Amino acid sequence: MDTTGNHTNLEKFFNPSSVVVIGASNAAFNLGATICKTLKQDIAFSGDVFAVNRGGEDVHGAPGFKSVGDIGRPVDLAVILAPAAVVPGFVRDCGENGIRNIVIESSGFSEQGTDGRRLQAEIADAARRHSMRIIGPNCLGILDNRNRFSCLYGANQLVQKTVQKPGTVSYVIQSGGVGGLVVERLMEDLPGVNKMVCIGNKSDVDESDFIDYFTTDGTEVIGLYLENVQRGAKLMAASLRCPKPILVYKSGVSEAGSAAALSHTAGMANNDAVFEGACRQAGLIRLRSPEELHALPKMFIDMPLLSGKRIAVFTNSGAFGSIGADLLAETPLVMARFTSRTRESLSRLPGVFNADNPVDIGPALPEVYLQIYDILLSDPGVDGLLHVVGMWRDYVADVMSELVELCRRHRKPAALFCFNGMKRVQAARAEKNLPLFSTLEEAVRALVVSHQQFHYLQKKEKKRGPAH
Amino acid sequence: MDTTGNHTNLEKFFNPSSVVVIGASNAAFNLGATICKTLKQDIAFSGDVFAVNRGGEDVHGAPGFKSVGDIGRPVDLAVILAPAAVVPGFVRDCGENGIRNIVIESSGFSEQGTDGRRLQAEIADAARRHSMRIIGPNCLGILDNRNRFSCLYGANQLVQKTVQKPGTVSYVIQSGGVGGLVVERLMEDLPGVNKMVCIGNKSDVDESDFIDYFTTDGTEVIGLYLENVQRGAKLMAASLRCPKPILVYKSGVSEAGSAAALSHTAGMANNDAVFEGACRQAGLIRLRSPEELHALPKMFIDMPLLSGKRIAVFTNSGAFGSIGADLLAETPLVMARFTSRTRESLSRLPGVFNADNPVDIGPALPEVYLQIYDILLSDPGVDGLLHVVGMWRDYVADVMSELVELCRRHRKPAALFCFNGMKRVQAARAEKNLPLFSTLEEAVRALVVSHQQFHYLQKKEKKRGPAH
Repeated sequence: MDTTGNHTNLEKFFNPSSVVVIGASNAAFNLGATICKTLKQDIAFSGDVFAVNRGGEDVHGAPGFKSVGDIGRPVDLAVILAPAAVVPGFVRDCGENGIRNIVIESSGFSEQGTDGRRLQAEIADAARRHSMRIIGPNCLGILDNRNRFSCLYGANQLVQKTVQKPGTVSYVIQSGGVGGLVVERLMEDLPGVNKMVCIGNKSDVDESDFIDYFTTDGTEVIGLYLENVQRGAKLMAASLRCPKPILVYKSGVSEAGSAAALSHTAGMANNDAVFEGACRQAGLIRLRSPEELHALPKMFIDMPLLSGKRIAVFTNSGAFGSIGADLLAETPLVMARFTSRTRESLSRLPGVFNADNPVDIGPALPEVYLQIYDILLSDPGVDGLLHVVGMWRDYVADVMSELVELCRRHRKPAALFCFNGMKRVQAARAEKNLPLFSTLEEAVRALVVSHQQFHYLQKKEKKRGPAH
Repeated sequence: MDTTGNHTNLEKFFNPSSVVVIGASNAAFNLGATICKTLKQDIAFSGDVFAVNRGGEDVHGAPGFKSVGDIGRPVDLAVILAPAAVVPGFVRDCGENGIRNIVIESSGFSEQGTDGRRLQAEIADAARRHSMRIIGPNCLGILDNRNRFSCLYGANQLVQKTVQKPGTVSYVIQSGGVGGLVVERLMEDLPGVNKMVCIGNKSDVDESDFIDYFTTDGTEVIGLYLENVQRGAKLMAASLRCPKPILVYKSGVSEAGSAAALSHTAGMANNDAVFEGACRQAGLIRLRSPEELHALPKMFIDMPLLSGKRIAVFTNSGAFGSIGADLLAETPLVMARFTSRTRESLSRLPGVFNADNPVDIGPALPEVYLQIYDILLSDPGVDGLLHVVGMWRDYVADVMSELVELCRRHRKPAALFCFNGMKRVQAARAEKNLPLFSTLEEAVRALVVSHQQFHYLQKKEKKRGPAH
């Protein structure tokens, strides 16, 4: 694989210096127009934006033309939102006018029977002839918060908001215009998103291409939503190359779900055991629900990996200490056994109700929290922390952000869950990039997947051998 | 058991015509004062409120006295928030002055070693002598949104808000002043709460007493958070008597969790298999997480029970249809097989992509949604609906509230999940009492527990025999 060439090819999808939106007009409910509005008005995209429509009319300040050929200037990227039947013609136009990157957002292709498949084949044909790279068809488009670029249609308010808070998680979403909407939820919450790309029918570019690309662009965690896998070996190879954690939710696992996903491919797509085995081998972290795609990545940001299974639970609510222990018992992780030194140090602190695991404290000053963090993280029998807190006072948010520092120093992670004061918690989370989870189960799952990633990397390291 | 007498006894906890808060003063951070403020200022409680403190000073408008005996008028309920050591004396005072209902919120009793256990025994003694009923000690108090009464301490903003929206779910929370805080989250969201009572160390009144009581006060669903069960046979008997669904989350399930819960009782408390068996026999619906205590009750409000296992999935997103089918495959429920008539009716409608299960539609008018609901609910092979919707237009919320009507007519339930437009969704949920869930897993779980309740009632009916 020409990795470099591939990256260069893909770069223009996210960072084009000029874009044409084909099919954008001033007609009511025109979807292409929403993209022009995003770029020209909502997020002040720094490049040129053009519109192509029958009348050659300007759209939200984007100069309009009757055809791509009329623009008369080089264009990096074409976004097509036109009826399926006319799309192949536009693709050829683009090819002939030197446009090498195309996002086809229109639907009506291979997902819609024989005629659609024929149209999609025509597109693939044109793309090959002109060495074009194509995302789609049948997709929502692209969002890049770092480069402040987006060709998501109909997502104006969302994009306006998310570009204010670029992050380090990048998503590849395979879904006919809809799974991409999951992303609306992803973005209501941390972690900040770097890029999101909806790959739709993936006639050309697929998830594996982006896994490779995301190793080059500041991405820290990759999230995949897949309905089928058409090129299993390619996905495994890309995953094995990738040094970042890759979280994947795959639908179509059950027979009914698989039928519903209307997978057109055999093999891995419909055989969950095969996919499961591939994930294990290539270190893909399989998720249990689409919610986890936005819930779990924060565990990999600013936090060391969990290098062992022994967890210290620390809470200011006895009830939740007990629940935390219960939830851990259902995972491969275990409750840490403290050294006597740890227990003694804890019992000397004011407000400590239980100086063993789970540690339970009453009302306490910030210093006490910090001392407990340090004692627990210093215990050689503790690999990580599950911290369940009531936000009795605002300073709890402050001590938690110091916890992040302490965790880095000790190279042990913590997962946090607050059972009250949710508004204050969300504010703190937004401000401080805390590994704060919305439910206790999520916090426990986060520790589990962190250890899974550690274990995978360790195994990989061993395989590679001491010579490397 | 003198059921009637018991109810009369308990009624005054929720609907007292006069209350004294013992330990309420104007000192900084005084917890009793927050209760006076709630009653006198925040929620305009209709009864009398008195304060007892050393100086006999008024607190937030509640007339102050140096002792209970000084009040000189009959008092229905005493709430005690004073250091543990002086609580037994206050309890005796109350008894001698004719107060028969007492909530002891102070901690420092059986949860804190020998001295505490001795104090708790003293209280129990006094209570017996004066035929008093006691909630606590070591608890957060009571909230009654219907009667607009609360003796939760430190929860002013919360109570002010929740009394505006009384509902039909009642909770019993066993947790030393903290599990009760779970309730803050419960109340951020629907369903509306009728009553919440925190039973703490349950020296006298326990969960079983309230299960009986909640059959008399307009409660539709009961939620229990338990750390231990001290009187297993009593709990089973009360559950078997109760015609309403009872959802229970019990902590202390694992060995570590159980140790953490510091159960002082043997038997059911520490033996999860025994508790599990008891739940099955007595129809208690066991929850998987504390979150489910607030997530699942709405399935039992305004919705028929799920009488069979065959679910129709209906979505305006193909991706989520597939995910829904996958999630159902992990439960005892199954994907319904449609009759050919259903498939034909569906395929005649505009915008229907998939006329089989899961039904998948594109952009469609409200009428189309309503027709599909009716077709699916009319299919004799369909027992219930899993409806996964994108809120593309505001009318989606409107058609969903019509769905609730249709479900009642067909006596088949629907569980709803919206994967975008969360703010609009939450507004709709608050306004229309929709069985809308925050995650797709929750919606599926709601169908599962609805069927579990149906199955239990059916079994119970059969046992009772045709004569009844």
